[in-house]
Amino acid sequence: MNFKNIGIIGGGQLGKMMVLEGKKLGLHFNILDPSHDCPASSIADQHIIGNFYDQEKIQSLAEISDVITYEFEHIDADMLVELEKQGHRIYPSPSTLKIIQNKYEQKNFLQKYGLSVPKFQKVVSIEDIDRATEEYGFPLILKSCKGGYDGKGNYVIKTKGDIKKAYGNLGGSHRDLMIEAYIPFKMEISVLIARGITGEMKIYPLAENIHENNILKTTIAPARVRRETEEKAHKLALKTMEILKGIGIFCIEMFVDQEDNLFINEIAPRTHNSGHYTIEGCSTSQFYQHLRGILGLPLGDTSLVKEAVMINLLGEEGYVGKTKVTGVEKALALSGVYVHIYGKTDTKPNRKMGHATIVDTNVASALKKADYVRDILKIISED
Amino acid sequence: MNFKNIGIIGGGQLGKMMVLEGKKLGLHFNILDPSHDCPASSIADQHIIGNFYDQEKIQSLAEISDVITYEFEHIDADMLVELEKQGHRIYPSPSTLKIIQNKYEQKNFLQKYGLSVPKFQKVVSIEDIDRATEEYGFPLILKSCKGGYDGKGNYVIKTKGDIKKAYGNLGGSHRDLMIEAYIPFKMEISVLIARGITGEMKIYPLAENIHENNILKTTIAPARVRRETEEKAHKLALKTMEILKGIGIFCIEMFVDQEDNLFINEIAPRTHNSGHYTIEGCSTSQFYQHLRGILGLPLGDTSLVKEAVMINLLGEEGYVGKTKVTGVEKALALSGVYVHIYGKTDTKPNRKMGHATIVDTNVASALKKADYVRDILKIISED
Repeated sequence: MNFKNIGIIGGGQLGKMMVLEGKKLGLHFNILDPSHDCPASSIADQHIIGNFYDQEKIQSLAEISDVITYEFEHIDADMLVELEKQGHRIYPSPSTLKIIQNKYEQKNFLQKYGLSVPKFQKVVSIEDIDRATEEYGFPLILKSCKGGYDGKGNYVIKTKGDIKKAYGNLGGSHRDLMIEAYIPFKMEISVLIARGITGEMKIYPLAENIHENNILKTTIAPARVRRETEEKAHKLALKTMEILKGIGIFCIEMFVDQEDNLFINEIAPRTHNSGHYTIEGCSTSQFYQHLRGILGLPLGDTSLVKEAVMINLLGEEGYVGKTKVTGVEKALALSGVYVHIYGKTDTKPNRKMGHATIVDTNVASALKKADYVRDILKIISED
Repeated sequence: MNFKNIGIIGGGQLGKMMVLEGKKLGLHFNILDPSHDCPASSIADQHIIGNFYDQEKIQSLAEISDVITYEFEHIDADMLVELEKQGHRIYPSPSTLKIIQNKYEQKNFLQKYGLSVPKFQKVVSIEDIDRATEEYGFPLILKSCKGGYDGKGNYVIKTKGDIKKAYGNLGGSHRDLMIEAYIPFKMEISVLIARGITGEMKIYPLAENIHENNILKTTIAPARVRRETEEKAHKLALKTMEILKGIGIFCIEMFVDQEDNLFINEIAPRTHNSGHYTIEGCSTSQFYQHLRGILGLPLGDTSLVKEAVMINLLGEEGYVGKTKVTGVEKALALSGVYVHIYGKTDTKPNRKMGHATIVDTNVASALKKADYVRDILKIISED
């Protein structure tokens, strides 16, 4: 191991879980995050408090780190290109990030290589949306090309009447927009895949995702699909990772339609909420795998040790303020239940405050436990 | 969960691994350790730099913590009794610690309850040793009643000629000494056992330990013993934990003689080197289990997920100075190998610098990998 100082842009829960894994290996972590009490803060060796777009702060992070990585993709790729020119190591590479962070460029790139994506086109004026409705039918999805997560930056257009509102809502002619056909999916899945500096690749079992209000609610691993679907998804993911020249962990989200056709929905060049199950469910967690990838270490075994269900713990409706977690005792009374609390000082409705993973010999029984855990484990505020 | 601030006396590798587990649950950790760069330091929320015998510092630790625990047993139990009187929660309780930290009291206590220990007696003068040689024969072991670990504070007396040297070496009449019969063991084993505040107990699979120069070299789980031996050891451990009213994790080391008789050797009221295999080998690691115990949470499932071999990574002979780890890449190229580096700034011969756990479907194949890993993974100094 020639490198031991890792710089992470972002100190949220993904950063925190990465630090927890890396500390086992004796690594040092420097994080850049504007919030003094962000989840990774208390366990990082150094915390540079600063905005993700602050060139000077990112430069400082690079100076004290052997390798730079990031826990979210909405950062200024050009700034990273500049650092790379100076000789700093940044993984995934800024050129890969550039393709991914613009959703239109991402889809265009995938389509160029013949990979299956929903129909899409650029929106330059509102008339482009009108034309798309004729070609794709309703519903369709207006998306801003940059930024956005957990459904933010997306608008589902159900009728002609929605078009103007959607266009205005997402910033109209002031922002880069694209329009996408809606895939009437029977399931959403995601594939975690890792690629090392040498090109070595390792792929995780397929995960099945259930969203509610555009936020991930449940991940089930392995996904309840036919074997051929898994094989097809794996092929698609391997090809995607290869053409993107990804380094570290990527998450590739896909739709499965009624005929088991697959369409790539979105790519995250980082660890992903739908991969949290790997901490207890797999031989190598996504966080450890990411570190192995960016440090030039051999990638780890991705096999499932036990079947797993992950549920997100979101801030309860009606509670805003200092975080209070209730129900941990009851949840831990069940075997195979692992509770993760991110340590965010304040809660608010739908904020991602933690997650629980339930491992079991089979998904059906893990799902039953998950329902119980969801009912009793709640994130509320202190008063 | 009503408590979230945990105070740990000691910030070595055991403290570090406890913090890593507790951080998943969003707990806060305060540590007391004299060394500014001790392994737990960079991930603890607060580090009080101070001696373990510094009453004022321990008091400060108590003030900012909801529960106090410790990662080693050589602390002033009377100081803890005082804190307990003030209303602070300390687990394991100071009264339990008092029994254990004096090896003579410990053995006496166990014997009183009819638990099997090697023959022993107090040494008030050198003549007591002479008398014991007649009763027990050679070899026998002179031990200082307090302090000592990894064989320090023990002296093996092989002939009459050793007696004077042994007595002088361990402090003679200036220290409390005891003499113990040597058990011609065919195996050393240890049992990890957890007890909660409610009296609930959970016991881990038997671990087999191989020592070299009195330092643990290898732990094999499950131990290669007959089923009846495991049952007998479990019974002995359960009874021991019950009479000691232990809270949290305890490690009970035993000798197995040629006829499969068991003798309790030593008890550690804390997580233990021979329990590191539980991190990847068991459903609940010893560190997580300890926290569950002292926080009043239900204890976790102790079952073995995969068979495991743990090897200690000691500072190589001939190297003193800034720590350098070599061979990590090669070790991680094998599946099922997990490398832990404690992050100690300086190495010296035989210092515990890290460990590696190898999990596999069977011990035999894990042992083969362990030999390979031991050969290539080395802790040396930078120059």
